[in-house]
Amino acid sequence: MRVFSKHKELIYEVAEAIASRNYHTVYHENPKEYGEEEKAAGLAAFQAKFNLDFNELNVKSEVWIGEEVSPYLQTGLGIRYPYIEVEKLIENARPAWKTWRNVDIEERAGLLVEALERIKLRFFELAYSAIHTTGQGFMMAFQSAGPHACDRALEAVAMGFNEVKRFPEQVKWEKWVGGSAISMRKTYNPIPKGISLVIGCSTFPTWNSMPGVFASLVTGNPVIVKPHPKAVLPMAIVIAEIRNVLKENGLKVDTIQMAVDTTAKLITKELAEHPEVQLIDYTGNSKFGNYLEGLRKTTFTEKAAINPVIIDSTKDIEGLVNNLAFSISLYSRQMCTAPQNIYVPASGIKITGGNVSFKDFCDRLKVAIDNLLDAKWGASTLGCVQNDATLKKVNEVSMALGTPVSEGKYFKMPDFESARTQSIKVLAVDSGKQEIFQKEVFGPMVFIVKTESTERSIELALRGCEISGAITCLVHCTDFVLCKEIEEKFNNEFIPVSLNLTGQIYVNQHAAFSDFHGTGGNPSGNSSFVDPGFITKRFVWVGNRYMS
Amino acid sequence: MRVFSKHKELIYEVAEAIASRNYHTVYHENPKEYGEEEKAAGLAAFQAKFNLDFNELNVKSEVWIGEEVSPYLQTGLGIRYPYIEVEKLIENARPAWKTWRNVDIEERAGLLVEALERIKLRFFELAYSAIHTTGQGFMMAFQSAGPHACDRALEAVAMGFNEVKRFPEQVKWEKWVGGSAISMRKTYNPIPKGISLVIGCSTFPTWNSMPGVFASLVTGNPVIVKPHPKAVLPMAIVIAEIRNVLKENGLKVDTIQMAVDTTAKLITKELAEHPEVQLIDYTGNSKFGNYLEGLRKTTFTEKAAINPVIIDSTKDIEGLVNNLAFSISLYSRQMCTAPQNIYVPASGIKITGGNVSFKDFCDRLKVAIDNLLDAKWGASTLGCVQNDATLKKVNEVSMALGTPVSEGKYFKMPDFESARTQSIKVLAVDSGKQEIFQKEVFGPMVFIVKTESTERSIELALRGCEISGAITCLVHCTDFVLCKEIEEKFNNEFIPVSLNLTGQIYVNQHAAFSDFHGTGGNPSGNSSFVDPGFITKRFVWVGNRYMS
Repeated sequence: MRVFSKHKELIYEVAEAIASRNYHTVYHENPKEYGEEEKAAGLAAFQAKFNLDFNELNVKSEVWIGEEVSPYLQTGLGIRYPYIEVEKLIENARPAWKTWRNVDIEERAGLLVEALERIKLRFFELAYSAIHTTGQGFMMAFQSAGPHACDRALEAVAMGFNEVKRFPEQVKWEKWVGGSAISMRKTYNPIPKGISLVIGCSTFPTWNSMPGVFASLVTGNPVIVKPHPKAVLPMAIVIAEIRNVLKENGLKVDTIQMAVDTTAKLITKELAEHPEVQLIDYTGNSKFGNYLEGLRKTTFTEKAAINPVIIDSTKDIEGLVNNLAFSISLYSRQMCTAPQNIYVPASGIKITGGNVSFKDFCDRLKVAIDNLLDAKWGASTLGCVQNDATLKKVNEVSMALGTPVSEGKYFKMPDFESARTQSIKVLAVDSGKQEIFQKEVFGPMVFIVKTESTERSIELALRGCEISGAITCLVHCTDFVLCKEIEEKFNNEFIPVSLNLTGQIYVNQHAAFSDFHGTGGNPSGNSSFVDPGFITKRFVWVGNRYMS
Repeated sequence: MRVFSKHKELIYEVAEAIASRNYHTVYHENPKEYGEEEKAAGLAAFQAKFNLDFNELNVKSEVWIGEEVSPYLQTGLGIRYPYIEVEKLIENARPAWKTWRNVDIEERAGLLVEALERIKLRFFELAYSAIHTTGQGFMMAFQSAGPHACDRALEAVAMGFNEVKRFPEQVKWEKWVGGSAISMRKTYNPIPKGISLVIGCSTFPTWNSMPGVFASLVTGNPVIVKPHPKAVLPMAIVIAEIRNVLKENGLKVDTIQMAVDTTAKLITKELAEHPEVQLIDYTGNSKFGNYLEGLRKTTFTEKAAINPVIIDSTKDIEGLVNNLAFSISLYSRQMCTAPQNIYVPASGIKITGGNVSFKDFCDRLKVAIDNLLDAKWGASTLGCVQNDATLKKVNEVSMALGTPVSEGKYFKMPDFESARTQSIKVLAVDSGKQEIFQKEVFGPMVFIVKTESTERSIELALRGCEISGAITCLVHCTDFVLCKEIEEKFNNEFIPVSLNLTGQIYVNQHAAFSDFHGTGGNPSGNSSFVDPGFITKRFVWVGNRYMS
């Protein structure tokens, strides 16, 4: 039986969901849905890997490397992965591609869903792998590394399924000339572009890599994943499960491979510049992203961003402040979608029947940040800082440059005495000091920018987007006309706007099947999870015509 | 009443046609369908423009320029067009864009179809304009400049209609958390990228430019057309009709503008490099195309190509030879789709119960070419050579480099004593002489390459495609397995294959709504008429979220 038959209904259901953009989920985000026993088993499975070779890829190698360090333990995990030379990876990909491209689209989609179902069985193991590589708290690690990443991968599979099946495989074409018909058979072939390189990041190793991996695979391309050397394990598990499904179905496991390297000797450029590599997915800093975009290959990038918050007025100042405090605290602001600059007019924020002064707002935000950290789930919400460099850059920003609102300080992480933590540093600055706030400061640091007016806030926010791009923009405003104006101005720069978020919906979160993640239209990246272009650029329509 | 209502059914019908890829046409290709009186009126309208300012654009200018020369008359047409500075064109485009982008997609599509209906009324005038700028014969000029160009434009409108309407304008998104629903309104906005520059060529001024023009317009972008200075009139008529429809409907006419220049002082680079120009459509030589692709804007290029013919075996040698003679004679091989290199094994061509020797094939092809030229419609099939440079390059190829099969000679064009004509020059060369045949020689020249075997033919043809790309590839082969092998090899290089064409279907012709023109995957260009990417790259999906 074809694997497609098993997952056919799910694929059609998801294809329907991405067209409707309504709320949808396939992989539940609540760990409680999966059982306590599974949680313990996941932890055990993770711990059992320490100081051993990761053998699940069934790859032979003379050299085994690994340098992952848990931000919670600040000790190495000791897991080693098989090192394979670039040329060997390419050699392996060639025959695998030949087989894979000839698997029909339905079966490719079916096999990929089957792999997701296998990955689902390891969600807790993935969560612990993510925790101890990225530094995320448990809940975020569980959701982002497991269900959310799988939902996004499924989204790519369904969009790929739609696009590859968009035109008929063949038609009989008949043209009547005079009294007789000229007839031809025509075929329409979605030809995959070639070897796909997916370059991972250290903060969201599966969430940011899986859409590209599944998009390339479903369109018939072989994939080489080059994870960040500090966050290999989560993708290693994903890749192992895909290879298992390939093997069980008599296909070549090297359809997907893992390329590990070390920070001392990165192989990313060698891979990216290899003439047989046609597709590159990338998440990371803008400098390297711009270099990749300049290679004149097909690239899908997500780079740095300065996400702005414009606060003009609100019906719910308490809700605003709490929502914002959570957004900037979540994973210590190491999310690509986290706000950095909060623009507030010097005259304060208009509220129902009154006004909240600039100073009052700063005070309220500080209180909300502190309360969040003091709460039972506070430390886990912030998690750890993934690496020392992030912390160093944050701490290089002198509090003397403006008015300190909240100092960034070490806080205790329950159960982990050595955890690398820091509370959110908040600095209020004048709008004139663009040299301070108009560059990305990644990590637990935000600026509250005191502006002359909301008009000036808009102007400054747009300027930041022009320089560094934005993946999200949060606006609090009760004036309908002004909202429309802001929306239009940001949308015209290809920046999405979220308005008046309070409660449990945060600007950082993009829902699979409904929200596009990134637009691809501003300097924060050239691609979007998962718009049609994320798929169609991975293959080429080629038509043949046959007479008689 | 909305213009959309008037054309709604047609738009849906065409959207259906592009999905099914079956034979379809909206604008009849047979001039007889349009009436003899209209033909005479079209000629008169064309002639009435000689030596006058082209006022139909209703554009004020101090400087009027024009340097079109009829390849039939070899005298200037004397028509002058309003010159507008680049900065002024951009300035005009800005406010026009603001209005145009806010016209909803249905109405935009309706207005564009209305413009096509107006253009239809001027098909004969367009035909004569094309004849006396490109040098095409009447039938080809009529079809390519009028109905075929309009069918392709309509294809772009329908694909644009589909893509822009692909996601809902808004949804109510509800997520259940615990026992209560969190709800948001979300909108999905297809934001146009910006000013679109369409750079025309001298051989197919409307056919190659209209798809880009209509694709950009339907997706909400303003357009500046920069026609080739030697072939302005056909697009000037098209642009005038679009502007008429815009004006009648209270929209800004500068949504589409024409940028004329002179060969002595081209403004193409100035336009292309202007920071506000975001989209570039281009047809022309590879050098300039590569420069445009390197600008890191969104580009749609069609560049040079070496289209191969591989002849292995046939069931109908007579049909093969006649079909091929027509393909290489049509418009004196100035079509981007015309074959250049005909690969034939030294051992000859296998036919039913026998073999046609290499020499015999050359002789037969010469006879077929001569017969075609001698026929009543022969001269008109070849038409004129558009410019002297083409002729010069063709005549620079020395017949001493191989075995002459057919000399390229002047022939008489009925009614036009001064016409720039030349019959097809055919040179047989050995497969070793790649320096001769592995570069594009545009115009009335083909090479018959004598190869060691069909395997070698395939290898050489692929080599040519690798260097210069190919838009088409014609194969004659009766061996099913070999056909599959050739098909796979060429398709993998993103080159479409047409097999065993005889009768009235020619490899040069791509049918709108059914055949993709170009694949975008090989060096002959990075785009395709009209695949989904031809549309989706012109706008960006931006989603907004609204709470309460």
